[in-house]
Amino acid sequence: MNTEFLILISGLIALFFAFMLTKGIIKSDEGNDRMKEISGYIHNGAMAFLKREYNYLSIFILIVAVVIVFFINWQTSICFISGAVLSILAGYFGMHVATKSNVRTAEAARHGQDKALQIAFSGGAVMGLCVVGLGILGLGAFYILFGDNIIYLTGFGLGASSIALFARVGGGIYTKAADVGADLVGKVEAGIPEDDPRNPAVIADNVGDNVGDVAGMGADLFESYVGSIISSLTLGTFLVSKFGNKYPNNEPVLFPILLASIGIIASVIGILFARKSKNSNPQAALNNGTYIGGIIVIISSAILSKVMFGDFKAFISIVTGLVIGMLIGKITEMFTSADYKHVKKIAEHTQSGAATTIISGLSVGMKSTMLPIIFIAFGIIISFYVMGGATNPSLGLYGISLAAVGMLSTTGLTVAVDAYGPIADNAGGIAEMSHLPASVREITDKLDSVGNTTAAIGKGFAIGSAALTALALFASYAQATKIQSIDLLKPVTLVGLLIGAMLPFLFGALTMDSVGKAANEMIDEVRRQFKEKPGIMAGKETPDYAKCVDISTAAALREMMLPGILAIVVPISIGLLLGAEALGGLIAGAVSSGVLMAILMSNSGGAWDNAKKYIEVGNYGGKGSESHKAGVVGDTVGDPLKDTSGPSMNILIKLMTIVSLVFSGVIYQYGGIILKFFQ
Amino acid sequence: MNTEFLILISGLIALFFAFMLTKGIIKSDEGNDRMKEISGYIHNGAMAFLKREYNYLSIFILIVAVVIVFFINWQTSICFISGAVLSILAGYFGMHVATKSNVRTAEAARHGQDKALQIAFSGGAVMGLCVVGLGILGLGAFYILFGDNIIYLTGFGLGASSIALFARVGGGIYTKAADVGADLVGKVEAGIPEDDPRNPAVIADNVGDNVGDVAGMGADLFESYVGSIISSLTLGTFLVSKFGNKYPNNEPVLFPILLASIGIIASVIGILFARKSKNSNPQAALNNGTYIGGIIVIISSAILSKVMFGDFKAFISIVTGLVIGMLIGKITEMFTSADYKHVKKIAEHTQSGAATTIISGLSVGMKSTMLPIIFIAFGIIISFYVMGGATNPSLGLYGISLAAVGMLSTTGLTVAVDAYGPIADNAGGIAEMSHLPASVREITDKLDSVGNTTAAIGKGFAIGSAALTALALFASYAQATKIQSIDLLKPVTLVGLLIGAMLPFLFGALTMDSVGKAANEMIDEVRRQFKEKPGIMAGKETPDYAKCVDISTAAALREMMLPGILAIVVPISIGLLLGAEALGGLIAGAVSSGVLMAILMSNSGGAWDNAKKYIEVGNYGGKGSESHKAGVVGDTVGDPLKDTSGPSMNILIKLMTIVSLVFSGVIYQYGGIILKFFQ
Repeated sequence: MNTEFLILISGLIALFFAFMLTKGIIKSDEGNDRMKEISGYIHNGAMAFLKREYNYLSIFILIVAVVIVFFINWQTSICFISGAVLSILAGYFGMHVATKSNVRTAEAARHGQDKALQIAFSGGAVMGLCVVGLGILGLGAFYILFGDNIIYLTGFGLGASSIALFARVGGGIYTKAADVGADLVGKVEAGIPEDDPRNPAVIADNVGDNVGDVAGMGADLFESYVGSIISSLTLGTFLVSKFGNKYPNNEPVLFPILLASIGIIASVIGILFARKSKNSNPQAALNNGTYIGGIIVIISSAILSKVMFGDFKAFISIVTGLVIGMLIGKITEMFTSADYKHVKKIAEHTQSGAATTIISGLSVGMKSTMLPIIFIAFGIIISFYVMGGATNPSLGLYGISLAAVGMLSTTGLTVAVDAYGPIADNAGGIAEMSHLPASVREITDKLDSVGNTTAAIGKGFAIGSAALTALALFASYAQATKIQSIDLLKPVTLVGLLIGAMLPFLFGALTMDSVGKAANEMIDEVRRQFKEKPGIMAGKETPDYAKCVDISTAAALREMMLPGILAIVVPISIGLLLGAEALGGLIAGAVSSGVLMAILMSNSGGAWDNAKKYIEVGNYGGKGSESHKAGVVGDTVGDPLKDTSGPSMNILIKLMTIVSLVFSGVIYQYGGIILKFFQ
Repeated sequence: MNTEFLILISGLIALFFAFMLTKGIIKSDEGNDRMKEISGYIHNGAMAFLKREYNYLSIFILIVAVVIVFFINWQTSICFISGAVLSILAGYFGMHVATKSNVRTAEAARHGQDKALQIAFSGGAVMGLCVVGLGILGLGAFYILFGDNIIYLTGFGLGASSIALFARVGGGIYTKAADVGADLVGKVEAGIPEDDPRNPAVIADNVGDNVGDVAGMGADLFESYVGSIISSLTLGTFLVSKFGNKYPNNEPVLFPILLASIGIIASVIGILFARKSKNSNPQAALNNGTYIGGIIVIISSAILSKVMFGDFKAFISIVTGLVIGMLIGKITEMFTSADYKHVKKIAEHTQSGAATTIISGLSVGMKSTMLPIIFIAFGIIISFYVMGGATNPSLGLYGISLAAVGMLSTTGLTVAVDAYGPIADNAGGIAEMSHLPASVREITDKLDSVGNTTAAIGKGFAIGSAALTALALFASYAQATKIQSIDLLKPVTLVGLLIGAMLPFLFGALTMDSVGKAANEMIDEVRRQFKEKPGIMAGKETPDYAKCVDISTAAALREMMLPGILAIVVPISIGLLLGAEALGGLIAGAVSSGVLMAILMSNSGGAWDNAKKYIEVGNYGGKGSESHKAGVVGDTVGDPLKDTSGPSMNILIKLMTIVSLVFSGVIYQYGGIILKFFQ
């Protein structure tokens, strides 16, 4: 029992540190009135979006909760509501603090880089610590409450996944609509610089950074984090029930819990190191924190593995997960950073126009799928067989889930580093709009660029962990539906596979269209304001920021519904119509094509973005040249791919898997209606 | 025995008609000296490409044949060589006649549309009849020779598939390199019209139409055609061996053979109808022929099904295949024709620039995957369960193979209609280069546009049949390797699935890059010629056509090797390393993501193409407007997708499946090296 309470303590520690960091941030100077005014706009816009989003989501949560009570049981329903609410809370706290940190980062940057880095990173860290703290507290409480009935906890995962999908899709649409509107009319048509206060969409654009990159990303990792733990708990419980005499102390269940607790402590220590690092190079500061966190996890998991299981097999699985995650991150960097040949090649192709820019970018994205898939394949094989999967498959599947837990053990740190970027970016925007000295903008730009690199690596991590988590949940699904195999020689499985593989394509199309629609509305609005209020351009009239914020908000909320509902309804329908094996095929198809599309979209998008930036620093004619115009086309094509559709894929595949897991009992009982008709 | 010889007779009938049509074409008037000269360039260029290609391929065939003798047996090796050689012969004859028909079509168009349609369609029909005639003769001969050892015939399929892949990839690279080179430097930079004889790449461009759309497409359908028959023969033999007493007359094997024979007769009759049709509307003429052919197949298969099996189950499977093929064709038309909303929407988006044009085109392509996949899913379920797959899976799988055979039974007609397009297109080019009156070009343009619509539908058919054929071959593979299941709950199967799903992405990237490289070489050459020979533009100097033809040829041959070899080596390696089940997963993954990528690529490409044409007829500012420029970017991006990478996907998945089938014995015996290490 003592060990089980450790999990709650580690969660409370994370929240305590988040609270302390928040106090520190709030204490810092907010700057002058102009800065306060602008940051107030951003803060209020972001919070208004969240509130309206939560209104929508509360209806959704209520309906699904009732469905779950009706078809499954009240325990799963309670877990579902809690998972959803805790995800929302993590997003709310994180955004609240992030939008308080931006202006203070800008103010601190007037006095030097160190203090600015500290505030920006603290803001990100609050989000990270809220994600892991609330995640583990929720899971821990229900674990203690329900004991061995781990299956109820899948409801918690479903709640987290649902919110994640809506937050990612909604946030992605919001941020891109605002971005495109601000860029296309403001920068290109009106010729005013980035973050100019005369641009009516400028506040929406800055709000978008928070909504998409802070709240969306936080909800995404919240669900990966709890999903990986739930899958290993489910598989661990199964091991205990099957080979109970081998595990007198419930080791397979306790191990991932303890590992997660250690991961939290490691994240806190890593965050403290990164904050205190008196290094003039912010990249080194972030790296130091990340390394220290990782090393703590590695050492502790070796000890834990030896103590609990008597060997280092579990340890190897965990390290495999960590290494695979880092390798995928590295590959992501190689395909999306201008330091390597791929981005340079795209930049070279801008010379022959937009068409060759697009073709080469698509090709780079497609090529970049190869190594991550091979690494994931190695990860699966090593973590499965090292645990002894050849003789005991259940043990092997448990090994795969441990690799996912290993990859995500330092989520607190990952989120901190990811969320730090948009805070620095926002700080730069506020500095610009408040006419602070150029030196301030230089510092925030430097901090932001560091954030961009680490964010690319974080995206690789997110994809790798999504794949492993989905596969571990997939194994849990099979055990829950009591199917012996998911046999591709059966036509229904193949049908499921084909439909599943198609869903990411459909999903991608829907989200891309949504961004297009929302962006068009924004473009029209910005044009209208410039036309009807000529005083704006002269700086004599204040643009109607709120209207633009409202357009992005309304569009995001409207457009997120269909993809979100599809992701829940389709798997259940296929399971009911074609049975549990077809649904298994569907998940496998969705995972394989979803991971590929996610890699293609985020890497093509990232590569175009950096190819454009590579030209902007003076290559191939620099800004304003024909090459640059072609590069801008590439970047614009890549925007919805890398910031909306691509990141949503990860959640799509996990959400569909966990929906199937939660409804596995129903599908086991009623599934396969069409097949019964043929028999 | 009598029935078995029917197959040879039907093959001979097809070849006889091809011979008669050829005689008729050769007899027609070739036109003036200028026309003869130009058509001579095209003919010689095309033949030179084929000869050089065949030199490369003969080495490849030899090596693989030796490997097969060594690892499998000499019978399979003989079949392999024959399949390859017959595919080559079909391509050679077809191209020969096609490049003789183009100039005669142009000459006939001087005297009216009817005669021109007749010649162009006869040219295409020769290709179609050679494909089915040689295909069925080869298969029939080996079937009579080897009797029940149908497994040897898989070698024939492997030969056909290998040639198809090289022909498609090589032809696709050839045609796009020439096209881009001719357009970008000739039309855009030098401002001369399409098919202007001053353009050094103009001959290569016209050769490309033949190499890609005639020879490449012919080899593609040759392999689909024989592949579908082989899969149903394999599965039929299995049925006979397992439930011999139910089939005293070897019905499951004879049925597809007879069906194929009837399909040939139906194709011949359909071709005759289309040729004789005195309709002012060429579309109606082609449609009539197609409908008549289809109706003959439907009626005969109903009779055959009742007579041989005593019920209409096999008939329903066949009709299911036909209907699915037509539905996919219709969907393809709806997503790629300017008569429907999708293309109009892309055209509308050209108004806001190249980026939105690309995004909306990608989204259209992604969305267009949904219905074809659902139709294929229905096709699988209906043809499986109608045959009684619920109680006897072997019978159900046989039903799926019949659906594929049904879809491809009128391949002779499909190829005739497909190959007719490039002949009409070439005729237009020759008319232009020979300065024939505008009325001639009008007629050839009309004939060509009809060809484009039917070709789009043919592409849909090709994708649908590739999916069903691959799945039927997949079932044969499972039986050959004696695996009981391909279980996605086993990690190696999942690993296979992930790697398989990734291959089409890698393959797409490789072929897109190849087109880019080849096109760049062509661009450089055309620019060089314009620069070094200023007399060309004044019409005083003849451009060096041969040099451009040579560049396309060399690039196509060089670039086709790596993708072709990958498609053969990867499946065998995975089978050897990870075992037969992992290889099964690989095939399933490759089929699912390959079909999706094929649909995405060909539909996005087709939609961009027609959106540009829609603007060119006067919408959104017409030719030369900003919208048109954006439309051209879309079209250029779509070109390699729809003409090189997309069509290659179909063959890639079939080739990998049949490679696995041919090497199933080796994999059964030696496969799974890594797994043995872990055990």
